[in-house]
Amino acid sequence: PDTKLPKVGTTIFTVMSQLAAEHGAVNLGQGFPDFDVPERLIESLNRAMREGRNQYAPMTGVPALRQAIAAKTQRCYGYLPDADSEVTVVSGASEAIFDAVHAVVRPGEEVIVLDPCYDSYEPAIDLAGGRAVHVPLDPRSFAVDWDRVRAAVTPKTRMLIVNTPHNPSGAMFGEDDIAQLSDLLRRTGIYLLSDEVYEHIVFDKLRHESVLRYPELRERAFVVSSFGKTYHCTGWKIGYCIAPPALTAELRKVHQYNSFCSFAPAQWAFAEMIEAEPEHYEQLGAFYQAKRDRFREQLLGTRLQPLPVAGGYFQLVDYSAISDLDDVAFCRWLTIEKGVTAIPLSPFYETAPAEQRLARLCFAKNETTLDAAIERLRRL
Amino acid sequence: PDTKLPKVGTTIFTVMSQLAAEHGAVNLGQGFPDFDVPERLIESLNRAMREGRNQYAPMTGVPALRQAIAAKTQRCYGYLPDADSEVTVVSGASEAIFDAVHAVVRPGEEVIVLDPCYDSYEPAIDLAGGRAVHVPLDPRSFAVDWDRVRAAVTPKTRMLIVNTPHNPSGAMFGEDDIAQLSDLLRRTGIYLLSDEVYEHIVFDKLRHESVLRYPELRERAFVVSSFGKTYHCTGWKIGYCIAPPALTAELRKVHQYNSFCSFAPAQWAFAEMIEAEPEHYEQLGAFYQAKRDRFREQLLGTRLQPLPVAGGYFQLVDYSAISDLDDVAFCRWLTIEKGVTAIPLSPFYETAPAEQRLARLCFAKNETTLDAAIERLRRL
Ligand SMILES: CSCCC(=O)C(=O)O
Ligand SMILES: CSCCC(=O)C(=O)O
Repeated sequence: PDTKLPKVGTTIFTVMSQLAAEHGAVNLGQGFPDFDVPERLIESLNRAMREGRNQYAPMTGVPALRQAIAAKTQRCYGYLPDADSEVTVVSGASEAIFDAVHAVVRPGEEVIVLDPCYDSYEPAIDLAGGRAVHVPLDPRSFAVDWDRVRAAVTPKTRMLIVNTPHNPSGAMFGEDDIAQLSDLLRRTGIYLLSDEVYEHIVFDKLRHESVLRYPELRERAFVVSSFGKTYHCTGWKIGYCIAPPALTAELRKVHQYNSFCSFAPAQWAFAEMIEAEPEHYEQLGAFYQAKRDRFREQLLGTRLQPLPVAGGYFQLVDYSAISDLDDVAFCRWLTIEKGVTAIPLSPFYETAPAEQRLARLCFAKNETTLDAAIERLRRL
Repeated sequence: PDTKLPKVGTTIFTVMSQLAAEHGAVNLGQGFPDFDVPERLIESLNRAMREGRNQYAPMTGVPALRQAIAAKTQRCYGYLPDADSEVTVVSGASEAIFDAVHAVVRPGEEVIVLDPCYDSYEPAIDLAGGRAVHVPLDPRSFAVDWDRVRAAVTPKTRMLIVNTPHNPSGAMFGEDDIAQLSDLLRRTGIYLLSDEVYEHIVFDKLRHESVLRYPELRERAFVVSSFGKTYHCTGWKIGYCIAPPALTAELRKVHQYNSFCSFAPAQWAFAEMIEAEPEHYEQLGAFYQAKRDRFREQLLGTRLQPLPVAGGYFQLVDYSAISDLDDVAFCRWLTIEKGVTAIPLSPFYETAPAEQRLARLCFAKNETTLDAAIERLRRL
């Protein structure tokens, strides 16, 4: 058939994971942990199945889970969303993003995205009949240039998508970004979609500037998170969206006729886990900071130059001392010839900076895996 | 915000389930079994979690599951789809329908649906910017009037959605429907979306006329099924779509940026279950036929008149001997005053036949549940 999404190909994550498998490379590409899900979660999920929690969950999510998410939100960000009218459980953050875009974006409307950005934003916008307008972040610090964002707003702009901690760079919003964002929303009346899936992976005592902390932001925002990153289970696909009642009502209309509801036993398991072990998410930053610090230390023994990382589980490296290949060619070469898989940055851009020589490595891995990668990278 | 889906409210299934809970009614409304998932499935899923199958599954589905689906398709319908290019695992049949519609329907195009039909078809079409064109089935036999379908085709028609065994009526396609459908597709070049989620719940030695049996149909079709109905786990939300490579490629572009992949441990569990216990799906028709026969026998002792049921787990009843209320009012009254919850038929229609006095009862229940319902229904 003629195609509605001519630009869409296989995601770079799948392409690189397949190449890694073919060449037996250490896969630091696609972002997923290679260590275990907490034991309590597996036990709770098993118990939920045995207790017969195997039929449709409520479309909006199991009430106990929505309440646990609301309570955790208050604990972390000082704001208690209403579990009934503001919290919706969906099948992963990807579905949440897709649903939020489809909830409000109409054909011909524009959505501002900040490049580099996660590869699902633009196809979701395209499928809703909208158009993504790309504003680049600073190519080195990945800070937002708010003047450029303001200049990109037109009467057709419906939404802005932000992401903090940021994939792929690990940059995070500071207080000034929040002030600029408040100002922008107040002046323009557009909606905000805030992708905060790495909310608990934050380093160096920085504070995660969740949109949920700020009344003037959250009243116009869909805030999306998921359990995949927080609980080491990217394949469980339970995410959620917190939004004011009117926006939640629109999001649910899409979710209701999209996946309708999400794997029920896991919803019961997360409800229990969140309440029983708050220390899990509280200590996640420290857990990953130790990995980051050790990995960066090791990288200093290679010719790759690590950039700063404030949050998330990705490390950008500058490879310009080693190669003049473009980033896609470099990552293929690194996989095939050197046995380590990284993700190039250009697929996260509409137009990548021409001279950028950066690749992304995932450090959500066991020490053994990271050591094996470093051993190979030392030979560069 | 102003709303993109003004017609969408809470689904009738949720409304009636909530009303049932409020009034302590025996809930024969929303279609879900109240008996257990097969033990082997729970064990396999638990094992998959313990073996670390907790990270992203491939976007297209775990290969072992796609192969098991392909092999089962050959066993049941004599056609072996290519597991790599024709089978896609998604997060339930609802997502499969949503993705298939979004894969090919463009703004302004029309999709023919046959009323009464499942309530997710039209909102999916609306969100894709298309328009549902409703053609009624026969109000008593629920047979397709193919002349009316042909008359509804316009140059804008992009797709026809069919469903066999049919929810809510339990009617099934026969050979003549297939002949008419082949003729229609050949003449018009439209696509077909065939919702076959009740494929294994078929009675009286009838043959399920899967679209997959017929080369001239399957070459233009998305065929959707799921494991929820077959394995008594409507809350596990693993479905799939079989379509020719070019259509599969388009469907995957949507799925990739919608839920991306589905709960991984369950995919491993289904892969094992399908291969290890083919008798489960082979004997499902007999299992449900016993329930249907017993339930219909019991209904003869009430003033509700059961209509014929060829497949699926729903029983339509004519209540005109009892009440002249419209079906929504009748089902509310039955729940609140008589303690049994049924689903009215009118929400499955754009325009329900004015004098129709039918309600839907779900018999995917334990004998105790069905007996309790019958005891109450006898008092009507
Ligand atoms: C859904 S595959 C992509 C995983 C991920 O979040 C990343 O690697 O950026
Ligand atoms: C997703 S709730 C609806 C369940 C169902 O298939 C039905 O009752 O018809």
